[in-house]
Amino acid sequence: MLFKTPLGEHLNRSLDRQVKLAVTGLSRSGKTVFITSIVHQLLHGLQNTHLPFFQIVNSGRLRGTKAMPQPDMHIPSFRYDVAIEQLCGDPPIWPQATNGISEIRLAIRYKSKNPLLKHISPINTLYVDIIDYPGEWLLDLPLLELSYEEWSKQIATACELEPRLSLSEKWRGFLDTLDPLGEIDETAMRQAAILYTDFLHECKDYGLSLLQPGRFTMPGDDLKGAPLLEFCPLLKIPEKMHYDPCLFTEMKKRYEYYKEYVVKKFYHEHFSSFDRQIVLADVLRAFNTGYSTFIDMRNAINMVLKSFHYGKTGVINKLFGGLKIDKILFAATKADHVTPEQLPHLELFLKNMLSNSRNNVIYDGVQTETLAIAAVKCTQAAYTTVQGERIPCIKGMPIKGTQPVALFPGEVPTEVQIPEEWVEGRFHFIAFKPPRLANIHGSGLPHIRLDRVLEFLLGDKF
Amino acid sequence: MLFKTPLGEHLNRSLDRQVKLAVTGLSRSGKTVFITSIVHQLLHGLQNTHLPFFQIVNSGRLRGTKAMPQPDMHIPSFRYDVAIEQLCGDPPIWPQATNGISEIRLAIRYKSKNPLLKHISPINTLYVDIIDYPGEWLLDLPLLELSYEEWSKQIATACELEPRLSLSEKWRGFLDTLDPLGEIDETAMRQAAILYTDFLHECKDYGLSLLQPGRFTMPGDDLKGAPLLEFCPLLKIPEKMHYDPCLFTEMKKRYEYYKEYVVKKFYHEHFSSFDRQIVLADVLRAFNTGYSTFIDMRNAINMVLKSFHYGKTGVINKLFGGLKIDKILFAATKADHVTPEQLPHLELFLKNMLSNSRNNVIYDGVQTETLAIAAVKCTQAAYTTVQGERIPCIKGMPIKGTQPVALFPGEVPTEVQIPEEWVEGRFHFIAFKPPRLANIHGSGLPHIRLDRVLEFLLGDKF
Repeated sequence: MLFKTPLGEHLNRSLDRQVKLAVTGLSRSGKTVFITSIVHQLLHGLQNTHLPFFQIVNSGRLRGTKAMPQPDMHIPSFRYDVAIEQLCGDPPIWPQATNGISEIRLAIRYKSKNPLLKHISPINTLYVDIIDYPGEWLLDLPLLELSYEEWSKQIATACELEPRLSLSEKWRGFLDTLDPLGEIDETAMRQAAILYTDFLHECKDYGLSLLQPGRFTMPGDDLKGAPLLEFCPLLKIPEKMHYDPCLFTEMKKRYEYYKEYVVKKFYHEHFSSFDRQIVLADVLRAFNTGYSTFIDMRNAINMVLKSFHYGKTGVINKLFGGLKIDKILFAATKADHVTPEQLPHLELFLKNMLSNSRNNVIYDGVQTETLAIAAVKCTQAAYTTVQGERIPCIKGMPIKGTQPVALFPGEVPTEVQIPEEWVEGRFHFIAFKPPRLANIHGSGLPHIRLDRVLEFLLGDKF
Repeated sequence: MLFKTPLGEHLNRSLDRQVKLAVTGLSRSGKTVFITSIVHQLLHGLQNTHLPFFQIVNSGRLRGTKAMPQPDMHIPSFRYDVAIEQLCGDPPIWPQATNGISEIRLAIRYKSKNPLLKHISPINTLYVDIIDYPGEWLLDLPLLELSYEEWSKQIATACELEPRLSLSEKWRGFLDTLDPLGEIDETAMRQAAILYTDFLHECKDYGLSLLQPGRFTMPGDDLKGAPLLEFCPLLKIPEKMHYDPCLFTEMKKRYEYYKEYVVKKFYHEHFSSFDRQIVLADVLRAFNTGYSTFIDMRNAINMVLKSFHYGKTGVINKLFGGLKIDKILFAATKADHVTPEQLPHLELFLKNMLSNSRNNVIYDGVQTETLAIAAVKCTQAAYTTVQGERIPCIKGMPIKGTQPVALFPGEVPTEVQIPEEWVEGRFHFIAFKPPRLANIHGSGLPHIRLDRVLEFLLGDKF
């Protein structure tokens, strides 16, 4: 390592005065809005009447929060200032999504609860680092457990079903023209990688979550055009092992190099130092798009949980030493897009979605939580009368509209349903504009359950 | 290090069968065209009748060259295929300039000269890796020798003279509003860095070479928005040393972090493994722009040479262990823009420009060479008669014209002149379109002195 962590940082960590919260998301889940709102809630904690379940605020022990220079100067800053300005603009707009990794540090000053410490050090400081990174990078970790052949088979299986069957057509057609045991042809490999990347982008646009390798859709300048991004799975894996250099061995070599250089590097430089992980998912978007999108999201989330399991006990743990992460929060975002009485359904649905893998992780000593949240609430609960019956609905300004609408977007199931029940048009969760906020700097942003999020993530640290 | 060099690479290096040529340039010097032409000359070495001074070709010992998969898969590939297609297009266009680092590997097969080896291994292979990187990164190395205070003073002095005096006005104006001993204000630091970066971009557009820090004008995605790029020199350095955190200490901290994280990383990962370095400079552009641009280029080249000197003997050497580089070529590019009898003048001028620092480097065992070259020759030498006198001229297609022109662009001085002699309009070196080439795949590209370049860089390896 070129870089040593400054001494002060070590001290803060060992005294439990620092916590690293990693935030990532699947399927455009609203990471930027989430972090912006979390930061805003904390900065305005003293005036905040919106955080009843966040004990430190509720108990009156909070003394104030301020933004601090971040510890890792080579990581781009999370621009809270820009995002909040957009949210409070006239008209307010949703902040732009971030690419790659970014970071922000907050210092929370609070009164100690510990009767002994109360006299020695009456006011303590907790440093909270929030790190934002693309969900695709998280989905790269499972690759560490897979050989090139195994991974290729996974992708081949996924491409047997719609929507991947159609979306991958062009790429698969090109692969058919290549001989896995033929000569290494850089131009053909490059073309195969371009078509595979196009396929991943189309999957993303469709709403699918499982997009591997993660850097293909988000390379960053430093890797653009590098051979380690110029490979793809092969659908026909040679039966016998081949050692002579050929297309297959070169693809495999680059896959291994990708794992070594990109995935392990991310693990070492970032992932291994995280204390707590938040995974956001736009479950409602999956409801809208259909059964396959939902199954894909479920697979992705379970794959992530498995990685954490391996991080504690499996190959990853053996390779790198244990993961520090001791709490994982899965949050279904945009919970203000359903009527209030559906919230428990949404949470239950999410819980059921990941019930199996969750047990493993809990067994490994990682605490998990599932919540339905809204980082910035942009609808109001209301009632409407249909054919004499009073039914709940939500009111808000549609993203493309100029007039507010009241609607009942559909009932959220609590269990995963069979494909036949997943009929088209059953759900119509729509996107809303951000609310107009009169006094945003005076108090917290309206939200759903961010206080529970904060209590789960930080409550035990005070 | 996460990465081990494959065993085969070590073997090739130790058997002197591999050579890493690093190519960089100052002031848009035509790096991409240079590398494209070098690669093309080597690939077409067998049919090449244009390389009389490249002994391996001339002696008939060359057996052929081909492009190979590059050794470092995380470095973007140098796209020779794209560049040559642009050069041979109809109409031909100059290939697009590259950003950041890129790499290409060639394998040269040749008959051994050594009478002993001739029988054991009659045909040998030399692997040539050509690495392209921005000149700004090379100009970052001198920062390793400078404290923040020293560097700030250098920039302050440079800004006392035109054109930097005018170009830096906005940035200096903003600095005047800041108190170096005042509170750390992230917004103000960011603003100062933005204005300083704008200033560097304007310097670049003007034709100046000395642009530090290098990543400010070429950050790459990974560093965009990171605090380590959010600093700048301060023009008023506090007289006494201050230890309390203030604007000055924070700027200094970030400067040190930049050196640690960016400059040393480049040194370790790339620079320290280079065997030979080519520095290209568009001296003629400096002639056109004026005295100050020329002086700036001279300073930049000498700073570079000093770095190599330090790399062999100074602080850099102490920090990292010795540099491997044993040959440096300084080349004045676009030598086809002067009339042929002026070529020796151009070379002599370049030699005089760096005479002092050159001695140091030669003393350290680094062989240096200065050449006036044209990677792709796009003019023809001709004669014209003016007032009865026969004078030499060049003929070519101006970059913005549709008719070829014949002109005498000016006499190249052999010595650096005093500012007064550097009258405006004295030189008018113009840019030309690439030549139309009938049979580009059959033979080498027309050039000036690339055979000497190849002989200097590779001749001793066969």
